[in-house]
Amino acid sequence: MDFANALSEIERAVSSAQVLTSADLRATYEIDWSRRWKGNASAVVRPANTDELSAVLAVCNRFKIACVPQGGRTGLVGGGVPLDGEVVISVQRLGSISTSEIDSGIVTVGAGVTLGEVQATAARSGWDFGVDIASRESATIGGMIATNAGGMKVIRHGQMRAQVASLEVVLADGSVLKGGGASLKDNAGFDLSQLMIGSEGTLGIVTEARLKLVRQMPSSVVFLVGVDNLAAGVKLVGTLRRATESLESAEFIDAASMDVVCEFLSSTPPIQRSRWYVLMECAADADPLRGVNEALTRSGLDDDSDTAVAMESTSQRNLWQYREQITDAISCLGIPHKLDVGIPLARLDEFADQVVKVVQTTSPGVTVLLFGHLGEGNVHVNILGADPDDESVDDAVLQLVAQIGGNIASEHGVGRAKARWLDLSRTATEIRTMREIKQALDPHNILNPGVLFPSHVSGVR
Amino acid sequence: MDFANALSEIERAVSSAQVLTSADLRATYEIDWSRRWKGNASAVVRPANTDELSAVLAVCNRFKIACVPQGGRTGLVGGGVPLDGEVVISVQRLGSISTSEIDSGIVTVGAGVTLGEVQATAARSGWDFGVDIASRESATIGGMIATNAGGMKVIRHGQMRAQVASLEVVLADGSVLKGGGASLKDNAGFDLSQLMIGSEGTLGIVTEARLKLVRQMPSSVVFLVGVDNLAAGVKLVGTLRRATESLESAEFIDAASMDVVCEFLSSTPPIQRSRWYVLMECAADADPLRGVNEALTRSGLDDDSDTAVAMESTSQRNLWQYREQITDAISCLGIPHKLDVGIPLARLDEFADQVVKVVQTTSPGVTVLLFGHLGEGNVHVNILGADPDDESVDDAVLQLVAQIGGNIASEHGVGRAKARWLDLSRTATEIRTMREIKQALDPHNILNPGVLFPSHVSGVR
Repeated sequence: MDFANALSEIERAVSSAQVLTSADLRATYEIDWSRRWKGNASAVVRPANTDELSAVLAVCNRFKIACVPQGGRTGLVGGGVPLDGEVVISVQRLGSISTSEIDSGIVTVGAGVTLGEVQATAARSGWDFGVDIASRESATIGGMIATNAGGMKVIRHGQMRAQVASLEVVLADGSVLKGGGASLKDNAGFDLSQLMIGSEGTLGIVTEARLKLVRQMPSSVVFLVGVDNLAAGVKLVGTLRRATESLESAEFIDAASMDVVCEFLSSTPPIQRSRWYVLMECAADADPLRGVNEALTRSGLDDDSDTAVAMESTSQRNLWQYREQITDAISCLGIPHKLDVGIPLARLDEFADQVVKVVQTTSPGVTVLLFGHLGEGNVHVNILGADPDDESVDDAVLQLVAQIGGNIASEHGVGRAKARWLDLSRTATEIRTMREIKQALDPHNILNPGVLFPSHVSGVR
Repeated sequence: MDFANALSEIERAVSSAQVLTSADLRATYEIDWSRRWKGNASAVVRPANTDELSAVLAVCNRFKIACVPQGGRTGLVGGGVPLDGEVVISVQRLGSISTSEIDSGIVTVGAGVTLGEVQATAARSGWDFGVDIASRESATIGGMIATNAGGMKVIRHGQMRAQVASLEVVLADGSVLKGGGASLKDNAGFDLSQLMIGSEGTLGIVTEARLKLVRQMPSSVVFLVGVDNLAAGVKLVGTLRRATESLESAEFIDAASMDVVCEFLSSTPPIQRSRWYVLMECAADADPLRGVNEALTRSGLDDDSDTAVAMESTSQRNLWQYREQITDAISCLGIPHKLDVGIPLARLDEFADQVVKVVQTTSPGVTVLLFGHLGEGNVHVNILGADPDDESVDDAVLQLVAQIGGNIASEHGVGRAKARWLDLSRTATEIRTMREIKQALDPHNILNPGVLFPSHVSGVR
């Protein structure tokens, strides 16, 4: 009865056409890209602007209704899907784009704008955007800010956190937090925008962002090399980082992932088969190879059979496919366990060896695929063939990560997937402090309950 | 009596030699560099390490004693000096430096390490540090993190916020918040380090920081040009930013500031007299002038009489003096009102005109000096000749800043100096949210009361 009253208030705020309650209309919003996370929503609400979203949250807060903020559903940790009767608040209709500050290298976009649209807007004015991920045509800026997305250019430009000039956020009680103004350097008080970034929808819902753009680099080179072990890859990246400021991406792919992606692309590896492949891109005003050949020679990697170099965009896109299509390729073979973890560079090689052993001991016969971002030691551990609902394999991987001094969530967030392991990466004092902040800003725990913090409470209460 | 008990507990924690209570020993710690802010402390405590600092805060929290965290006393907004009987907690003895992660471009330092020491440590391993300020030999990393210091390289590398990989912070109750670990990309939960950065000692005391280093650029050029107005300067910087990635600094100096610094240096301006001067530095692997001459020509600034170019370090240091010595030069003439404000680039020229008129209307006969960081529209408004205790001139400037869409604290913080004007830059929702977080983390308000938030409570309560 309470819920029916709340729903009619919500319908008055956004119009009944934008409150989806029938199962067929809701279905799209109840499952994410990975297919591992699905549930059911009591309603899906699609506000058109900040005022509407604010009104919706005020109602939910008053009636203590659990809400799941949702962007493009490309997340991999279940942070944007309902489980059991929550109200989904989709930001996809927050689609405004303003270029009024483009001369200062700033674009202002609604939370529902996709990364691809931001990239295209930047390109039209001679700028580029500092974050790139393979799901660029679906992932929304709101979701990318909520998870502090990383991707392929972190080594040069940082994660989403580094691209945000200021945010507009609706808090749990519906009040609108808007800071920053039009100046570029604002230091008056706590940086609440930075607190919101990476909070996975548990402290507020991002509605708009002023994003910093980066310079467009006119010339680039992409190259793929084979290495025997990841220690050699780490060393190569270290050498390159000191030799040139143009290093923009440094990715790694293991032999198993290369096999899977080659089958998906009906192709063969672009270089001689190797235990590990390292894909790198350098971009500069001119001469992007400056320092690169020397670094390859110094690392003993100048053998042509072990190296592919692409100077033109078509051949560059071709090389990038072997990295970007891995996730789709794996998805065709089943629903994998996906663990996104951060490993200290000095122990990356050791981790890569041990994780395969640990997984195969826990769950004999499964396939382990390793790829990710070499610059930051960010490994995407994908496991095919294990029961999707059996978390023992996740537990084994995350325990190993913690033992080796790594962290359990490098760029995908904690979500529902890893909430119960949060204490492997965060101390008791950190978790207590996070809970104190959560309690202060969302006292009724209506924003994404069950995400980030372990909790048994969800749904309409 | 309570205070005497607290003090003896503190002495047990850090040894009585490190608890200064006599007026002569305290004096150094009761005034900052600007001489505008001074007061008296009931004691100055100098812990040697995190454990000692933790024990001290636990006592202060239990006895509800107000504490002022203090670094190198180079702040300009009274955020690090006691006013009325607080306990000063100096971090100057937290002086450790670890280079164990130097190959990943990370150095770990205690809060009392100076910026100069970090720069020297980085240089010894072929790295550089991304933040530089004129007070480098005194300013401590702890204070620079607490204020999110900016300085001369923000246009390329960002403020302190962008240089921090992870922090160790002691919270109000003495518990130690230590996150991050050794991996480079950690996204498990709220970024508490980012919340602490810029919080001016009101949420915790930074004890240690893992700092990211940047590449050392082997070749650089420094050049000074004269422009008729700041709009021309903004346009030049915009042209340069798009023409080259090597732009590292873009500073501006008005004619009045140039006069004052020339008198201080017993020198003359290095180029023909101008209404405004723009000092820039580009640094690159090679050919730092690439794109620069073309940009100057395009901006009509290629006349030799209006431009000085320095390729060698001695002549570069000489040009930099005209910017870096302004603050010392002003200090010799009296105690100025100093207002560090951020102005939208599009309105910078308008602000520069209006602020002089507004100040001279409020306080006839005073001298207004304007200089600062052109890249971010960060203006240091210095006013000489006004009564140091008369805040009407500050009020006039900050009201103008707010009218013009700027912010009242661009890189020096809010401190005690601007707390009463916080609502000019922050909305009611922002201030309420900041207070909720403050209340959650420091319920007895022992950490820097009177700083950031307007408050009449300070001292021993």
